Amino acid sequence: MATTIGIFDSGLGGLTAAAEFEKLFKNKKYIYFGDTARVPYGTKSADTICRYAFQDTKFLINKGASLIIVACGTVSANAMDKLNSKFDVPIIGVVEPAAKKAAEIASAGKGRVTVLGTAATVKSNAYERAIKKIDSSIEVLSVPCPMFVPLVENGYTHGEAAMLFAKEYLQPTVSFDADAVILGCTHYPHLSDVISQVLNGSTLVNSGKEAVVAASKLLGADFVSEGDAEYYVSDAPECFEHLARIFMKKDAVGKVNCIDIESF
Amino acid sequence: MATTIGIFDSGLGGLTAAAEFEKLFKNKKYIYFGDTARVPYGTKSADTICRYAFQDTKFLINKGASLIIVACGTVSANAMDKLNSKFDVPIIGVVEPAAKKAAEIASAGKGRVTVLGTAATVKSNAYERAIKKIDSSIEVLSVPCPMFVPLVENGYTHGEAAMLFAKEYLQPTVSFDADAVILGCTHYPHLSDVISQVLNGSTLVNSGKEAVVAASKLLGADFVSEGDAEYYVSDAPECFEHLARIFMKKDAVGKVNCIDIESF
Repeated sequence: MATTIGIFDSGLGGLTAAAEFEKLFKNKKYIYFGDTARVPYGTKSADTICRYAFQDTKFLINKGASLIIVACGTVSANAMDKLNSKFDVPIIGVVEPAAKKAAEIASAGKGRVTVLGTAATVKSNAYERAIKKIDSSIEVLSVPCPMFVPLVENGYTHGEAAMLFAKEYLQPTVSFDADAVILGCTHYPHLSDVISQVLNGSTLVNSGKEAVVAASKLLGADFVSEGDAEYYVSDAPECFEHLARIFMKKDAVGKVNCIDIESF
Repeated sequence: MATTIGIFDSGLGGLTAAAEFEKLFKNKKYIYFGDTARVPYGTKSADTICRYAFQDTKFLINKGASLIIVACGTVSANAMDKLNSKFDVPIIGVVEPAAKKAAEIASAGKGRVTVLGTAATVKSNAYERAIKKIDSSIEVLSVPCPMFVPLVENGYTHGEAAMLFAKEYLQPTVSFDADAVILGCTHYPHLSDVISQVLNGSTLVNSGKEAVVAASKLLGADFVSEGDAEYYVSDAPECFEHLARIFMKKDAVGKVNCIDIESF
């Protein structure tokens, strides 16, 4: 049966998940929606986040998506139950797959996981809850890294500034000596190099990638999905290429369409 | 005649203008609106920025404001003509008053002005146009400082990180040796210390403060405006106090109300 994947994020950070999808499923179609008119979600109230997530999901289903990947940490941490009870298609967030992977690594090791996330994601405690549900003996240390998103979006993924903030946020966790470090925001994989330098020896878990792996298990490798990837944003499509270059590490990603998300 | 000032910004950065208002007009009432549901404006399209600015202005007028200060660089750079032709009350942006002040300083000096702003403000060229309109012989050098807003919002107004980015952005302008440096974003006055250290000898022009000074000239010192300041946001009022502490340098700013700005 034909299955088209829909991926959404509050902005364009979720393109890291799209890049992982392309690696795993070469030449298969997906539909990406970045809610650039309403980014960021992390500072919004829980009700607003839910309303936005419903609209984003409805838009992708209307476009033909039959499996949704929520590549947004804020929605994954706050709205998955409500999303799954409202819609019939399978909806996969970034929290549970990454928690599962990190718990596997920790259960086979010293039993410790560090979670790096935005202030809102850390405050939500979602990763910790998901890990403890799998194995309540795992110790979890969550660290908010609020400057990581602006660093990535402005191209500071290496060098002095990236290292300065990586050390500030992560140095206190060095002695915690986690088996696995969840990069709990789709922007963070771009800082993998500096994070690895500070947290030498821990395995980094990319939450966007784990969501795609979870989707692939649901789909099987031979699902049918024909056509070129489609990209939609809710504002300023001309800004898309700049960030797409950062997030997907390629120069062009095809036509970008602007839609009125409030109408969904 | 009773006159109540309304101040709006895309978020809470405009509270620096509110703080200047409080300094200049002790105990006089003002109404602040921060569009926290739709911040930031700088990444939005020109049409969207205009629509938002209309709603923000209409809300403040409905609340009784009879003079509006637009404490938002993006709106001031993109929508002042349209705002002034749509509404009857006087509307003062942050671009023209700061341009006027900087031009005065430069005309009495070496004739050079540096403008620091967000990428969107620099791209709009609004400060340069306003300065050239006053004195076309003034040389203007505009520098985008995209990391300054996240630095301020996360409390990095002093220290190694603030200095690192101040040097990166400003070092190339040292040899330009401007008479005046416009802080073309309401967040930037919080980085005045590090900016002054790098650009030793230039006079810093605070765009929010100059807008308040321009309003005071329209009003006269003895205008009547009774009552406590009122604060409104369009989302997450619980986040207001944290940023209010940063922007107004005080612990409590009174009750904050949440409104549905889309209904205006």
